[in-house]
Amino acid sequence: MSLPDYSNLGFTTIRVELDGAVAVVTLDRAKERNTFVQAVADDLIKVFDLLDRDDRVRVVVQTADHTAPAFCSGADLSGGWERILDSDAEKDGEHAHRDSGGKVALAIFRCRKITIAAVNGHAVGIGVTGLQLPCDIRFAWAGAKLAFPFVRRGIAPEAASSYLLPKLIGHSRAMSLFITGATVTPDSPLLSGLYHTILPKREEVFPAALALAKDLAATTSQTAVAVTKALVWRGYDNIEEQHILDSRAIRILALSPDAEEGARAFKQRRAPKFADKLGRLAPWMPWWREVNVNHRRSKL
Amino acid sequence: MSLPDYSNLGFTTIRVELDGAVAVVTLDRAKERNTFVQAVADDLIKVFDLLDRDDRVRVVVQTADHTAPAFCSGADLSGGWERILDSDAEKDGEHAHRDSGGKVALAIFRCRKITIAAVNGHAVGIGVTGLQLPCDIRFAWAGAKLAFPFVRRGIAPEAASSYLLPKLIGHSRAMSLFITGATVTPDSPLLSGLYHTILPKREEVFPAALALAKDLAATTSQTAVAVTKALVWRGYDNIEEQHILDSRAIRILALSPDAEEGARAFKQRRAPKFADKLGRLAPWMPWWREVNVNHRRSKL
Amino acid sequence: MSLPDYSNLGFTTIRVELDGAVAVVTLDRAKERNTFVQAVADDLIKVFDLLDRDDRVRVVVQTADHTAPAFCSGADLSGGWERILDSDAEKDGEHAHRDSGGKVALAIFRCRKITIAAVNGHAVGIGVTGLQLPCDIRFAWAGAKLAFPFVRRGIAPEAASSYLLPKLIGHSRAMSLFITGATVTPDSPLLSGLYHTILPKREEVFPAALALAKDLAATTSQTAVAVTKALVWRGYDNIEEQHILDSRAIRILALSPDAEEGARAFKQRRAPKFADKLGRLAPWMPWWREVNVNHRRSKL
Repeated sequence: MSLPDYSNLGFTTIRVELDGAVAVVTLDRAKERNTFVQAVADDLIKVFDLLDRDDRVRVVVQTADHTAPAFCSGADLSGGWERILDSDAEKDGEHAHRDSGGKVALAIFRCRKITIAAVNGHAVGIGVTGLQLPCDIRFAWAGAKLAFPFVRRGIAPEAASSYLLPKLIGHSRAMSLFITGATVTPDSPLLSGLYHTILPKREEVFPAALALAKDLAATTSQTAVAVTKALVWRGYDNIEEQHILDSRAIRILALSPDAEEGARAFKQRRAPKFADKLGRLAPWMPWWREVNVNHRRSKL
Repeated sequence: MSLPDYSNLGFTTIRVELDGAVAVVTLDRAKERNTFVQAVADDLIKVFDLLDRDDRVRVVVQTADHTAPAFCSGADLSGGWERILDSDAEKDGEHAHRDSGGKVALAIFRCRKITIAAVNGHAVGIGVTGLQLPCDIRFAWAGAKLAFPFVRRGIAPEAASSYLLPKLIGHSRAMSLFITGATVTPDSPLLSGLYHTILPKREEVFPAALALAKDLAATTSQTAVAVTKALVWRGYDNIEEQHILDSRAIRILALSPDAEEGARAFKQRRAPKFADKLGRLAPWMPWWREVNVNHRRSKL
Repeated sequence: MSLPDYSNLGFTTIRVELDGAVAVVTLDRAKERNTFVQAVADDLIKVFDLLDRDDRVRVVVQTADHTAPAFCSGADLSGGWERILDSDAEKDGEHAHRDSGGKVALAIFRCRKITIAAVNGHAVGIGVTGLQLPCDIRFAWAGAKLAFPFVRRGIAPEAASSYLLPKLIGHSRAMSLFITGATVTPDSPLLSGLYHTILPKREEVFPAALALAKDLAATTSQTAVAVTKALVWRGYDNIEEQHILDSRAIRILALSPDAEEGARAFKQRRAPKFADKLGRLAPWMPWWREVNVNHRRSKL
């Protein structure tokens, strides 16, 4: 496959730019307050799938225009909640529906590169759960209103956020946010630990995230990052099995060009130049049970 | 079944009042420092089982009199620890014992309504583990002494708190509290995240909790709450399976009257009036494996 | 087996002293900045295995000399990462390698006594992951530089830290630390909850940890501690099964001499004198599935 030209892939709701090894994905529906509609989901799923497999890319920053009314003001409710259902899937029965927010969350979560959310505006519902939680690192504007309105709308938290949020910040804070339908700012004690960096001005958020992205793109190993992410999220639930697993991971990496370069650069007191690619991990990853999320149609 | 009249159910250790859709359960043994004895367990198990199934109830606040010497001063140790064993169960052998604190914790945990602990006094042992941890949200008096004395009494943390506390605030803080047998106040860094709101005066705790309870009773969907609680606590341990699960949950709710009302109220910029009942979820919940906690007697 | 004389066991990289029921393990390679080499791993694995089974010991404090250049400056990279591979295991193929940091982490983790890390200097890589995370409680010097450099060296976090760190402080903070290859001090918000106590001066760390150790050695039950640790780390992932498990644990402890003494001392308002030993738990522990971490050689 030839390398994608992200400026020419027909995205209608996002802009995508490569800045060296950093990809910047910008929500581009300011007039619609960056509401989440099917076309946004389609674009994000497509781009994160490509970025996952594009060897040029080491870090992805996801953001919006800081002058937009919101980072993402949630699902478009103008048609009611039932409009989120896919009429085609409905024909196949109650098990066939797949939440589009969850599909986006999965696409981000499964991206093996470093993912950073630069939340430079207000975010509601899916704008928090689907766009922020699956990222590795989150930056936020201190004034951002972050809303978890589900139970106040007659709906449940989507985008696998009932899995992600308790893991990220613990069940006590997650439950407080979900059950009260809270709207909070990033410095709320209820969000403690969720944001890596909180900045006072909207326009500071993306540059700060980009600066970290460039540093990480220059100094981290693509293979080491991918293995680290997988060890944390796809490991075992007891220490012995994790020991067996990470022993294998460390051996594979220890014999890699990146580890050799890492040790050499360390001894020479210089920045490393990592060149290894994710393909090296192919015979080994995924080691975990891949659950197929696609509905299997029962007839033609 | 006719609706229970909570003032007439023969409770001897608690008072129970309905205030609209808010049920208030008050520990009523101030003279005994609200120690935890079998009659308290029996009353709490009974009332939370009823509140779970009483469609009128949307939120439960559990509290004590703020003038009592303690919110709950722990298990009554006057007979020693062995007195907590049930002689009848002992006849059936070492597997038959069921911790009464755990039975209470399960009754609260399994209540599908919003549960709020209003901790307006000191709490020891089971007064923390059994009465607070299973609730969705916790309020506390800043001066409350909260004790985890188990290892200093020759016993282990009970009431499934070795499951709940690490999930709620992480293994590091939980282990520090359990292993040091600590007594701390709610603002201790070791408890960070456990309390939703901490108030300076004892008499402020219950009114603050009640105000949130009334707000949530007026603005949240009973079905959305029940599904949210279950997604968080009864979900899967990988993101793909959770995505399949919450897709189903969201579809079921999206087609419900509460979601319709939620979207309509949102568009009309008014508070929603939710009317759906938990019975709607019956064909679908529980989706998880229900582990039977009852001991099976091996002979007559 | 006769009781070990820790001063006479041939340790070359650590000093071990018994101070009543407190064992102090001190890293003793100040000239080498307490780097982690195979001999350190061997000594630590040996001593924690002994301390686990030595009935005299109730608490273990692990520290370094506060005048050393570092608490532990990480793995010795002078030979490159591939040097960490054991040539003997390599003959048996890619599954045979076992990470030596993980072996140490397991030895500490599996020690049934209270374990306290007194981190009185800088710590890098394995000096954080392998030596600190498996302990029950951590003390640190406020000025300690704590580095998670893995992805900047082309390697993944070792010593089962991809299991331990997310459990200890949540996935959000853990991922931020791992993915950015951060160097932070103990008061960093990214580490919130990891350290029980942070002290301004290097020389204050060990005495403070020792004071807690002596208090716990005098006031806690060895059996209650061992059961508490196991309930937290070896419990079930649903509340019902944990209730059945802790019911059994509480019954066994309730009938123990330590629980009797604990209740008696409480009533008499005096400090307890616990005398029970871990052997009592032998018929019952471990209740969990013990995963064998040893590689099985396929031929002679």
